[in-house]
Amino acid sequence: MSEKKLTVAVLGATGAVGRRILDQLQQSTIPYGTVRALASAKSAGEKVPFGHEVLTVEEATASSFEGVDLVLASAGGSVSKNLAPAAVKAGAVVIDNSSYWRMDNNVPLVVPEVNPEALLHHKGIIANPNCSTTQLVMALKPIHDRFGLDQVIISTYQAASGAGQAAIDEVKAEAQARLNGQSMAEHAKILPVKSDKKHYPLAFNLLPQIDVFEDGDYTHEEYKMIHETKKILLDDKDSREMKVTGTAVRVPVIIGHGESVYVQTGDEQATVADIRQLMVDFPGVVLEDDVAHQVYPQPVEAEGKRETFVGRIRADLENPGAFHLWIVSDNLLKGAAWNTVEIAEKMVEMNLL
Amino acid sequence: MSEKKLTVAVLGATGAVGRRILDQLQQSTIPYGTVRALASAKSAGEKVPFGHEVLTVEEATASSFEGVDLVLASAGGSVSKNLAPAAVKAGAVVIDNSSYWRMDNNVPLVVPEVNPEALLHHKGIIANPNCSTTQLVMALKPIHDRFGLDQVIISTYQAASGAGQAAIDEVKAEAQARLNGQSMAEHAKILPVKSDKKHYPLAFNLLPQIDVFEDGDYTHEEYKMIHETKKILLDDKDSREMKVTGTAVRVPVIIGHGESVYVQTGDEQATVADIRQLMVDFPGVVLEDDVAHQVYPQPVEAEGKRETFVGRIRADLENPGAFHLWIVSDNLLKGAAWNTVEIAEKMVEMNLL
Repeated sequence: MSEKKLTVAVLGATGAVGRRILDQLQQSTIPYGTVRALASAKSAGEKVPFGHEVLTVEEATASSFEGVDLVLASAGGSVSKNLAPAAVKAGAVVIDNSSYWRMDNNVPLVVPEVNPEALLHHKGIIANPNCSTTQLVMALKPIHDRFGLDQVIISTYQAASGAGQAAIDEVKAEAQARLNGQSMAEHAKILPVKSDKKHYPLAFNLLPQIDVFEDGDYTHEEYKMIHETKKILLDDKDSREMKVTGTAVRVPVIIGHGESVYVQTGDEQATVADIRQLMVDFPGVVLEDDVAHQVYPQPVEAEGKRETFVGRIRADLENPGAFHLWIVSDNLLKGAAWNTVEIAEKMVEMNLL
Repeated sequence: MSEKKLTVAVLGATGAVGRRILDQLQQSTIPYGTVRALASAKSAGEKVPFGHEVLTVEEATASSFEGVDLVLASAGGSVSKNLAPAAVKAGAVVIDNSSYWRMDNNVPLVVPEVNPEALLHHKGIIANPNCSTTQLVMALKPIHDRFGLDQVIISTYQAASGAGQAAIDEVKAEAQARLNGQSMAEHAKILPVKSDKKHYPLAFNLLPQIDVFEDGDYTHEEYKMIHETKKILLDDKDSREMKVTGTAVRVPVIIGHGESVYVQTGDEQATVADIRQLMVDFPGVVLEDDVAHQVYPQPVEAEGKRETFVGRIRADLENPGAFHLWIVSDNLLKGAAWNTVEIAEKMVEMNLL
């Protein structure tokens, strides 16, 4: 373990994830000394809580990182693109929540329980996976290692908070409008995608679009889930050894993503009991699968928790070795802030910080 | 076409589906004469609208069906079990929304666009499929006929109204409580399953339980979807020719079920363009699949419409001949009331009424 106190900068400290990074950092085993809150010029001067202290937000610029050992970043792709190299040049390690660096061959994409060894080869920037990927690979990893995975098919049920605080406010305003018998349409300004042309209400609705559309009519979110899952689980980068596909849907939940996942393992002898035991044994995963007592993962129960919850495990009755899983986790914690801080904890433990 | 005026009884006329059956009947091409509203003793004397008229609800008993030609029933399994045979004995044809008769070998299970020929062999009772099945087979039928279907994997996103008006009221009360910063728990009395032991809030949540749990930890809803889909699509009842499996999830939507469906066709040469054309050509299906203009099916847009909407059609990039579909329909109309009335329209057209 490193003995020095680390100077930590939280970049994007005023956002829904940034505030939670400060919370998680404060509760972590990381030996932090000075903690600085950085954000855009617009937010400079704002106050953000850090345990019982209050930090004053400073504007983030390329010269903000002098003397900083660790940057925990959640400020969007373009900010990370510009500032992460400056922070690395100043001697810091950057753990980044944006999608910008994730598929870069020189950047490890890490879930600490799943592929900590990837941290050994870092070159200053470590990427935190997309929220829908993180909880998915937590459940897939032990199955992949024990039985192999031939195919994974995912349908997501993703919460509004994945699009930030403004999306949370929007879905609440829409819900109140409909409960009052008023139109929801005027409140729809952010979802499904702020930068896209049309906006639709999410309250009491389902939006099968998360992020922009790309080749083959898949969304960027769907591609992130596919490519990041392969990068994390496949050592040799041979994507052909495990097929991954899926559909990403935004649902009117505030916090907590659900995923209905179908896995075809490589072993026709694998049983539901085997899969359940793998979940029990895997750190960070909690098995919630006792249907006789109506126990199964639910977003409102996962809110505020660090773990990934797995239940509704069933064998496909016609396809040996294939199973259904229902995976739920707090998308702002394991899907973002906690995984980021947990990477730093792991790097301290591995003497990489 | 039959020329006589049909005496029609709507059984369960006070429920969310029953009221919509009256609406759909009033707007239909069925040559109805007298229309009677039947329900439990508790509701006798209540008034229900029928177009510009008002009907007075009568108590439904075994002797209610004298002179009735057609019974449109949506009153639950135990009522249908008891009263449908009495109605048939009195000379009526019964089109039933409950699950009780659906898998009976002597009862056709019918979606008029999909398998009208099954009506030819009816023995008085015709079953209307479960809501999640109906919209599914609307999209699957043309694919099955053209390319064959080796496997179908479904994840549902089902609206509260599938559990009746009380469930709609419950999810609205929960949503208002959470928006007010109050606990949702006290409002949870019906969902996920009224007769089961525990009840959980659905507002801003996801409940991976619809109906009770059965063998292999599948829910009754999941089995209904699997078995009914096979009964409707497979002429020879050989279930091995098409594997069907899935997960049913209740979502905080009022009206309109979503389904994320993965199909492995029997033809590796099938293309997205082929699947889209099949949807355009199939009666009752509307293709909503123009992602460049953010056009895709949404429950709030499907509400009040009779059609089944299909979009987000994509090829699995690693598995030739496999596709994703996103299917949305009003679960109270095509999933229930409209399909029931449409069966009767089709029977009139086929001179079976």
